[in-house]
Amino acid sequence: MKIGIIGTGMVGQTIGGRLSGLGHDVMIGTRDVAGTLARSERDAFGNPPFKEWHAMHPGVKLGTMREAAAHGEFVVNATHGVSSVDALTTAGAENLRGKILIDVANPLDFSRGMPPSLAVSNTDSLGERIQRAFPDAKVVKALNTVSAPVQVNPGLVGSGDHTIFVSGNDASAKAKVRELLQSFGWGHVIDLGDITTARGTEMLLPIWLRLMAALGTPLFGIKVVQ
Amino acid sequence: MKIGIIGTGMVGQTIGGRLSGLGHDVMIGTRDVAGTLARSERDAFGNPPFKEWHAMHPGVKLGTMREAAAHGEFVVNATHGVSSVDALTTAGAENLRGKILIDVANPLDFSRGMPPSLAVSNTDSLGERIQRAFPDAKVVKALNTVSAPVQVNPGLVGSGDHTIFVSGNDASAKAKVRELLQSFGWGHVIDLGDITTARGTEMLLPIWLRLMAALGTPLFGIKVVQ
Repeated sequence: MKIGIIGTGMVGQTIGGRLSGLGHDVMIGTRDVAGTLARSERDAFGNPPFKEWHAMHPGVKLGTMREAAAHGEFVVNATHGVSSVDALTTAGAENLRGKILIDVANPLDFSRGMPPSLAVSNTDSLGERIQRAFPDAKVVKALNTVSAPVQVNPGLVGSGDHTIFVSGNDASAKAKVRELLQSFGWGHVIDLGDITTARGTEMLLPIWLRLMAALGTPLFGIKVVQ
Repeated sequence: MKIGIIGTGMVGQTIGGRLSGLGHDVMIGTRDVAGTLARSERDAFGNPPFKEWHAMHPGVKLGTMREAAAHGEFVVNATHGVSSVDALTTAGAENLRGKILIDVANPLDFSRGMPPSLAVSNTDSLGERIQRAFPDAKVVKALNTVSAPVQVNPGLVGSGDHTIFVSGNDASAKAKVRELLQSFGWGHVIDLGDITTARGTEMLLPIWLRLMAALGTPLFGIKVVQ
């Protein structure tokens, strides 16, 4: 399947590499292709520059955000949450029309120090904002409750015996995202309901951040137990 | 141990009954003792009136909020979150001084319809508000992430193999609350850190409420998996 990924960071790389490894035709989109390829320093989180990653994943195409969105039958939002609507606007509403848009981002606001708070929460969510801004896209919130390595390889923790969530207004879009998640190895997928339920998964971030500090690792998951 | 519980609702009853069953000397506090005993109708959630419950738990004392707080070496806040600071003020700061105050409440705001939003979140929490209002109490946030029956009997779901959290500024108070949780059957207790981490557990409520709807039961738990 043709998949466009908006965002060249850790999440975009991890999901793009995994999808490419599964045989999909992946294009990652950036605001500035030349700039992304020229960068040689690590990012603020210590991750290597994109070109190092790209050299190890030559099957993944790099293009502009518009090109990546146009390329994809599925589009993945892997940008920073506080700039996602802006980035997706750059990608072009016409390139998202009628498509499934998997929103993996969290609206983390680092402007007030660490740990970050949420730029939107409680009575709204980033997932809803994106759905309102792009009413012709089928937004499905997913994967935002675990770190990037766990997103694409749930077996990294607890033998994969934990839970991932989907939120969205379109049942058939959620069914297709569920298939994609299953191809990553997710066995326990809970459909929380419409896109307003993205408030619930985005609001997991405050405890997620504190758990990362308490456990000393981002490699953990949450299992819903009955 | 002498334990005072502020709040006569489902949570206060459930925790009070369990603690009494474990041999503690429990007093539940209400604003209006005569009114609480006179009420004969079910509450808005369909729970039976207090006097029916009390008839089955004669070992639990009933008193005013002041009397219950004065009675307890431990005090449990089991009031509705939006009125907790007011209720604890009625109970009396002097009756909480130097004591461990277990805050089980969530700041659910039903004024904007269902599901409720949070009256405080993201950059503050009910746990922090209570600690600021009663600086001489040792506030420990706990048990607010599961329904009342599960709070006192974690084995009701998943054979008890799930996680409960504590947040608070006083390490020895958290250690004592951990012992109390263990006496309820909790085997996996994670200390998230200081009272600001109550933001994380209170912000679990939005996904908790949606999970209750999706699963069709309040009998579930969350297990942190590594």
